[in-house]
Amino acid sequence: MSHTPIHAGIVGFRGYSGAELLQILTRHPHTTPVLMEHRADSEDRSRPRSYRGPARIACSGDAARELGINIIFLATPPEVSMELAPVMLDAGAKVIDLSGAFRLRTADTFKKWYKEEHTQPSLLAEAVYGLPEFYRDEVKGARLIANPGCYPTAANIALEPLVAAGVIAPDTDIVCDAKSGVSGAGRKPTLKTHFCEVTENFSAYSLLDHRHVPEVLMNSKVAAERFSFTAQLLPIHRGILETIYFRVQKETNSSDLIDIYEKRYAGEPFIRIYHANHVPDLAAVNHTNFCDLGVKVDAGTGRALVVSAIDNLVKGAAGQAVQNMNLMFGYPEAEGLL
Amino acid sequence: MSHTPIHAGIVGFRGYSGAELLQILTRHPHTTPVLMEHRADSEDRSRPRSYRGPARIACSGDAARELGINIIFLATPPEVSMELAPVMLDAGAKVIDLSGAFRLRTADTFKKWYKEEHTQPSLLAEAVYGLPEFYRDEVKGARLIANPGCYPTAANIALEPLVAAGVIAPDTDIVCDAKSGVSGAGRKPTLKTHFCEVTENFSAYSLLDHRHVPEVLMNSKVAAERFSFTAQLLPIHRGILETIYFRVQKETNSSDLIDIYEKRYAGEPFIRIYHANHVPDLAAVNHTNFCDLGVKVDAGTGRALVVSAIDNLVKGAAGQAVQNMNLMFGYPEAEGLL
Amino acid sequence: MSHTPIHAGIVGFRGYSGAELLQILTRHPHTTPVLMEHRADSEDRSRPRSYRGPARIACSGDAARELGINIIFLATPPEVSMELAPVMLDAGAKVIDLSGAFRLRTADTFKKWYKEEHTQPSLLAEAVYGLPEFYRDEVKGARLIANPGCYPTAANIALEPLVAAGVIAPDTDIVCDAKSGVSGAGRKPTLKTHFCEVTENFSAYSLLDHRHVPEVLMNSKVAAERFSFTAQLLPIHRGILETIYFRVQKETNSSDLIDIYEKRYAGEPFIRIYHANHVPDLAAVNHTNFCDLGVKVDAGTGRALVVSAIDNLVKGAAGQAVQNMNLMFGYPEAEGLL
Amino acid sequence: MSHTPIHAGIVGFRGYSGAELLQILTRHPHTTPVLMEHRADSEDRSRPRSYRGPARIACSGDAARELGINIIFLATPPEVSMELAPVMLDAGAKVIDLSGAFRLRTADTFKKWYKEEHTQPSLLAEAVYGLPEFYRDEVKGARLIANPGCYPTAANIALEPLVAAGVIAPDTDIVCDAKSGVSGAGRKPTLKTHFCEVTENFSAYSLLDHRHVPEVLMNSKVAAERFSFTAQLLPIHRGILETIYFRVQKETNSSDLIDIYEKRYAGEPFIRIYHANHVPDLAAVNHTNFCDLGVKVDAGTGRALVVSAIDNLVKGAAGQAVQNMNLMFGYPEAEGLL
Repeated sequence: MSHTPIHAGIVGFRGYSGAELLQILTRHPHTTPVLMEHRADSEDRSRPRSYRGPARIACSGDAARELGINIIFLATPPEVSMELAPVMLDAGAKVIDLSGAFRLRTADTFKKWYKEEHTQPSLLAEAVYGLPEFYRDEVKGARLIANPGCYPTAANIALEPLVAAGVIAPDTDIVCDAKSGVSGAGRKPTLKTHFCEVTENFSAYSLLDHRHVPEVLMNSKVAAERFSFTAQLLPIHRGILETIYFRVQKETNSSDLIDIYEKRYAGEPFIRIYHANHVPDLAAVNHTNFCDLGVKVDAGTGRALVVSAIDNLVKGAAGQAVQNMNLMFGYPEAEGLL
Repeated sequence: MSHTPIHAGIVGFRGYSGAELLQILTRHPHTTPVLMEHRADSEDRSRPRSYRGPARIACSGDAARELGINIIFLATPPEVSMELAPVMLDAGAKVIDLSGAFRLRTADTFKKWYKEEHTQPSLLAEAVYGLPEFYRDEVKGARLIANPGCYPTAANIALEPLVAAGVIAPDTDIVCDAKSGVSGAGRKPTLKTHFCEVTENFSAYSLLDHRHVPEVLMNSKVAAERFSFTAQLLPIHRGILETIYFRVQKETNSSDLIDIYEKRYAGEPFIRIYHANHVPDLAAVNHTNFCDLGVKVDAGTGRALVVSAIDNLVKGAAGQAVQNMNLMFGYPEAEGLL
Repeated sequence: MSHTPIHAGIVGFRGYSGAELLQILTRHPHTTPVLMEHRADSEDRSRPRSYRGPARIACSGDAARELGINIIFLATPPEVSMELAPVMLDAGAKVIDLSGAFRLRTADTFKKWYKEEHTQPSLLAEAVYGLPEFYRDEVKGARLIANPGCYPTAANIALEPLVAAGVIAPDTDIVCDAKSGVSGAGRKPTLKTHFCEVTENFSAYSLLDHRHVPEVLMNSKVAAERFSFTAQLLPIHRGILETIYFRVQKETNSSDLIDIYEKRYAGEPFIRIYHANHVPDLAAVNHTNFCDLGVKVDAGTGRALVVSAIDNLVKGAAGQAVQNMNLMFGYPEAEGLL
Repeated sequence: MSHTPIHAGIVGFRGYSGAELLQILTRHPHTTPVLMEHRADSEDRSRPRSYRGPARIACSGDAARELGINIIFLATPPEVSMELAPVMLDAGAKVIDLSGAFRLRTADTFKKWYKEEHTQPSLLAEAVYGLPEFYRDEVKGARLIANPGCYPTAANIALEPLVAAGVIAPDTDIVCDAKSGVSGAGRKPTLKTHFCEVTENFSAYSLLDHRHVPEVLMNSKVAAERFSFTAQLLPIHRGILETIYFRVQKETNSSDLIDIYEKRYAGEPFIRIYHANHVPDLAAVNHTNFCDLGVKVDAGTGRALVVSAIDNLVKGAAGQAVQNMNLMFGYPEAEGLL
């Protein structure tokens, strides 16, 4: 079977997700990455030492056509993604957007959580939520992918199968206590990401109202009024670990939850289920595209816990984006990712 | 008013809590710390560089009487504490035990959680749980103090006032997601505390069944079947931060919770309450004896969160022990601790 | 003996040195710290949670007189120090400047290393270099103190006694390989101090030409053409460790160097000398005002090494500043510093 | 051209170097890694989660023959390597030893630095020092490779070309100030590698007498009496950075040193030379098999500095071992390493 060679533009390659993307695409056997600038006149002219591609190129329809770009990755803020996505789609490229611009279903929801107007409501309607484990078929046919948020990726993979199986107690609260490495806060220097403010520290932010919450509600079908989520900053570079608490239906034990996961994720190349009472740590998933899941149930009371761990820059961003790209171009899903 | 000068023995001074204790007592204006060995023949003969006290002394009744020890701190494992506490009490010294040996109410509960027989059930009955904010009067008159566990200190200070005020929804789950620095795991080298296993990592342990749980149930009066607690290891030296989730009664908001705390802890030297929607981080409490509390309530749903932060070696161990010592000897409670 | 109570202004209290200064002065029994702004209209209006002093005050002669400020600490960039120092001296306050503005001897040298004109050459001539172990008497009588740089403090204390004793081989090179925690780079967020750029990394900067070099040459009398110094960034919050290499005269051994140090620093409250072949680490000095020195000589070849360690924010900045203040006001030199 | 498929035994796979080796060999397209135990009865029965090879196998000649092992990696202490190397050579396998057992030239030198008798002096004489950039041809024909130490790899690559070119001043001292991540100290838990002892700390060890020194003297031809080396522990997982100081001959500048390196290392796949006055940090080399070199010369005085950086687990151990393996089996030198 012959495949289309991929010419992949990357905008936002100086950020941590963009840099990870470049690294993965450079190793990918069928892809040529091309770095592109959002603004031709941006001050920062740095490029990765190892990059051998064409000189400084602004992201435009002409450039895309000239260079034969057939897919573009937008590792940019939502407002930049809303500006560039239609331009690149018009130029005939597929688009994978790593921002939150196209993840929610309606312009109103977007405005509520992102505090800005959505300028591309028709694209919002068209975009496919790029969580391959849930929406593989839609991804294959999509022009525009909304690559999932890092926190929702770990949460949805953990929660949706249990909700769907009806194993969660109807009167339970669901708590997702989420912790992320600092790369999740981006590369722009701020006091919050200053080494001295982070090292030997730990802090919570976006208390109960992180804008990633609606991505979980939509995809996992948990009830908003019983779902509490808080994000916290770990003094590490990368990795997300979520400790998720709830109660299960009577007579349900750890093995039952593991069975549900194993059936649901049979054949999935990037989901690993742990033995009962064992849970992943970040060392197990960092620098990989895996999402690892571990389970503990207290049989007497039904109190349960799931730990879901990913690398926020890989399965939570660049790796998942490449997984989507592989699907969109008919390559093996794990190409370049193992 | 004249006060008794304090001659304070420390057993277990090579551990992190014991070392912190030595440092605090050295600064304390009315205390002379004396380092004591559990075994006269122990291999490790190291002593802190700055210590100028008497030469190597085994912890015995004779030594205590000879040196005029009127209080002894046991920063030792439970089985050592059960061995030494009666000896030192017989020698006329007060005892503050930093282990879990005397914290639970019955020998049966102790055996269930610590997997060993309690050898001193009568002392277990006599011991006062040394959380001054809850049991100040009992502490003043006590011979034997069970210094609280680090995790329960943060959890009880956060939970008990809310339970007592009846503000927590009756049908809620209560989740305490706890994170601790590595010093909480002790100074004995193990693979779990090896630098390379901890740095850039984060991991959960004692999933839903940490032996500190009964200390919270007993003192905060939360219902066991609805209370989930998990301990997690932060890649930092010291500090405990607990993110506690529950739902509140209708019409209750952040200010209501803050009011409850402010009334309950009015005049307390070591409890600080944050403004609504602000929560502490570890930098705020490390190297201090403070317990900081912050609150967020989502008014629409009643979902609520409290963050409780302490330094596990200070308010979670040595600092609280000295706070108890001050009460027992009639000194100002904060002496040597500010 | 009665002492003047100290009213100490601090400009630059939001930086790491300024914050450390506030903490030390708050503990100091005879000092009332007062926070002052360089510009009345600066955007950042934050103040430390614990500070109870007067409301926002701009640093001016009037304010100084009104508040009875008798000493001011300038934890500011050199250009701000050159602006504020004469104003405060005119208002009758003593000045301790923590910048490099007044450390070098001439305006030309200053311009060479700091790349800007010196606007206060007469004050430059008057300023006393505030290394109490070398210039204690001059400090006592000074109006204006140039508080030493962090790197030079560790280097001068290690090198000067050996140079003065003539024990260093005449044909040797002297290498000072210096490592500092990130707080030495200041609190302003930059990519260089972003957590993700620093953690799990180590990097050299100011290769052979750091502007602290002339402070070492001047005070230790080492020959410029044989003295190599390089600064490096450790992935830690605080602490400076310098590994200093040279060769000694024939027949000189470790004990000889230790003897020289012990004689030179006899009675010094903040210098500690280690046994032969033992050297300090940062854990020994961090959060203290000590400078620790350790020595190793290879007797056969005369190759020698000294390790000098300080906390860059304490002995390398705020602590040393308070040591100077104590001398200037006739208080015990270690007041508030042990 | 057809190549022999490689069946590679790994003894010591639980250590950090062994684990890195397994990871690299698993990715290598022509190698099947096989985990082997030094002792069939060792207590630790853990194996990497991802390993799918044969069940627990003791390292013996029979096992090697049965499994068709044609090369064995010994990531073991020197005494184990001296025991196993002859056994495996007799069984017809090539051997790459990652310990110091076969790196020095004579049994006497070995005894002097390793404080034990060498039990295999004839193998010591046969062993080839596996630094491909220096001894590529010898490596190709070797049965037994002494894989270089981590510190000497970085030092020799930096120093030997300059010594050989005669550009170093004859009367200079040469100082190599070396810093390593904690994985260099091995995976066995000790107080020195306890997280709380390492984090926010920095310490020197093996002052002027590290046993890696003779490996540098032998291969770079620097004079022992003028060469000072000290090892230091960085609070990071991996990476070695060496800051090397010396003086150069008159009229020599940065470009001259860079020219020497570029000629010497032209075509080398794993050596990268930086532009003048730019030096590598650890982020540039970690998780790669590169050795990066940067240079600064102070033209006036001839004082010079080279920074040499490697990943201690890759170019300093497992990666270099695989580079040697590729040469021994006729594969492209960089196979599996880019």
